[in-house]
Amino acid sequence: MAQKARNNDVDFRPHFKTHQSAEIGEWFRNEGVDKITVSSVMMAEYFHNAGWNDITIAFPVNHREIDRINSLAEKCDLNLIVDCQETGSFISSKLKSPVSVYIEVHTGYHRSGTDARDYGIIEKIIGSVNGNKYLLLKGFLTHFGQTYLARGKQEVDQIFYSSQKTIGNLKEKFSKFFDKPTISIGDTPTCSIEENFEFADEIRPGNFVFYDLMQMQIGSCSLQDIALALAAPVVSRSMERNELVIYGGAVHLSKDFIVNETGEKVFGLAVDLKSNGWEPLAGEPVLTSLSQEHGIIKATGDILSEFKPGSLIGILPVHSCLTSNLMKSYITFENKKISCFQGSYIF
Amino acid sequence: MAQKARNNDVDFRPHFKTHQSAEIGEWFRNEGVDKITVSSVMMAEYFHNAGWNDITIAFPVNHREIDRINSLAEKCDLNLIVDCQETGSFISSKLKSPVSVYIEVHTGYHRSGTDARDYGIIEKIIGSVNGNKYLLLKGFLTHFGQTYLARGKQEVDQIFYSSQKTIGNLKEKFSKFFDKPTISIGDTPTCSIEENFEFADEIRPGNFVFYDLMQMQIGSCSLQDIALALAAPVVSRSMERNELVIYGGAVHLSKDFIVNETGEKVFGLAVDLKSNGWEPLAGEPVLTSLSQEHGIIKATGDILSEFKPGSLIGILPVHSCLTSNLMKSYITFENKKISCFQGSYIF
Repeated sequence: MAQKARNNDVDFRPHFKTHQSAEIGEWFRNEGVDKITVSSVMMAEYFHNAGWNDITIAFPVNHREIDRINSLAEKCDLNLIVDCQETGSFISSKLKSPVSVYIEVHTGYHRSGTDARDYGIIEKIIGSVNGNKYLLLKGFLTHFGQTYLARGKQEVDQIFYSSQKTIGNLKEKFSKFFDKPTISIGDTPTCSIEENFEFADEIRPGNFVFYDLMQMQIGSCSLQDIALALAAPVVSRSMERNELVIYGGAVHLSKDFIVNETGEKVFGLAVDLKSNGWEPLAGEPVLTSLSQEHGIIKATGDILSEFKPGSLIGILPVHSCLTSNLMKSYITFENKKISCFQGSYIF
Repeated sequence: MAQKARNNDVDFRPHFKTHQSAEIGEWFRNEGVDKITVSSVMMAEYFHNAGWNDITIAFPVNHREIDRINSLAEKCDLNLIVDCQETGSFISSKLKSPVSVYIEVHTGYHRSGTDARDYGIIEKIIGSVNGNKYLLLKGFLTHFGQTYLARGKQEVDQIFYSSQKTIGNLKEKFSKFFDKPTISIGDTPTCSIEENFEFADEIRPGNFVFYDLMQMQIGSCSLQDIALALAAPVVSRSMERNELVIYGGAVHLSKDFIVNETGEKVFGLAVDLKSNGWEPLAGEPVLTSLSQEHGIIKATGDILSEFKPGSLIGILPVHSCLTSNLMKSYITFENKKISCFQGSYIF
């Protein structure tokens, strides 16, 4: 990903909400990364304490955290996201330290962000963030999150090309407000599948650090690219039901699922854990259901003979970000424990 | 629930995996509770340290934790669950301190437990746990988890009566192996909806401490009974899309959902937070989608005028156990913080 960013002459500002770990952050630094993305003020504080000094909080400003934002902005280069007038006016009246601001726009993903084609509203938002000497309006930030519903390169291409066009028009339309508006884009499907990001100035993918079954289904990665597995103890097996029960449930993996070709929910893929990685298991046994701590693997006879109560089995997660967030630490194949951010919640 | 147990002359052994908090545990002690249920060895250690001395780990024994089990069994009355021969033989050869053991059976819920009608296998499991002087076989433990798919009293009744019959037959069949086999049952829907538990010796509900939208849909509680809400900051609003964006996503609420009457997924119900509780909001606005940190509330004009970026809104969770596990602490209406177990994972 770092190489792809260099090829395109765009900044690489990886999203660290997937791994949430200062130590894994160092792996990125070794690739020349010096700018990062996070999803909360507390996560920004954690990574600032770990030596990162150029941080984008890619989540609409939480007004209730303005004091912490001001305090962090004194210590590092902080980039904030504004997607409505209220927040624009709010930070314009409250900022006490220099920050850069991006207007968040969307190109069809209806989460946060204002519609990138709605120039009227965007102009008002720009108007609302122009009244503070500490505030530097940098450009537009967007997340083509609708790619998460795409399946295969063709569908991702379609979203990407149409979004690229929308953003191109936006850039042209608002060039008078900016010296040169910075365009920040960043979903893992687009950044994995596409090659040409020249219309943008920076990419912010996060999930690609581990990938997962959902990304494989979208087409962002192959199975072999998945770099995270839950090491789950087998606690029971039923020869009658052809099932293994694992100590691995919703509190470890999350309840995210994908739907396979035959319409069944899949909560994870069972694999064989080896000393230096994982290997597929015959028949590709999947987790078919999850409750709080229990996971059920549908398995064939061979798997049922190989794994018994007391065995460890690997589970490739459906959504590695949520699994990492629940587990809060990693074990490497050198048997080294890597810790994560243990953030709580500001309300 | 304590009163209902007394009415039935059965033990009340509440499951503490929902709240996971020593302090909330004290509320139960005030109701006369002195036996509890947990779902992992570490949670048992946590509650033992908080003064509980009769603990059932209602999860199949994890062989990999036998040393911790032995060490905990030295210090308190520990009840373990065995649902297959391998585990029966394993603990028979490894136990070094006295424990009580229940055979886990199921009456149609295919998670852990062996089929309560399969007397052949049950006899073999009983055979496998009879070889250790520290091991006292107490009876059968079951969880009528299939009630989670039921909707309304009639469907829960059906599961309950048929399960009751199956367990009655089992008890009769195996009475020769036991002085008097203890029967432990325990799902929140059954314990909430039914009144007569005389066929059993103990009940182990957990979720009822808070309830949630899923329990309301099943019929275990009314909306007013839901005693837990996420206090979520509103971070954006879109008058065009009739949406509020909250800082409240899958890492706070979990990805569990219910499907409403019109077939839409619901990830939570927005409510108004008052100084002494919550109140419903007009139009019952729901969380229609969740990503890692973002939640989207579909709202009407009135709600959009009342809540703006910086407001706090309450979210009644779909599954309070998972929300509690993610949030790790509570705030009471007296503004007091209540902490939870911060367990990690043994593999």
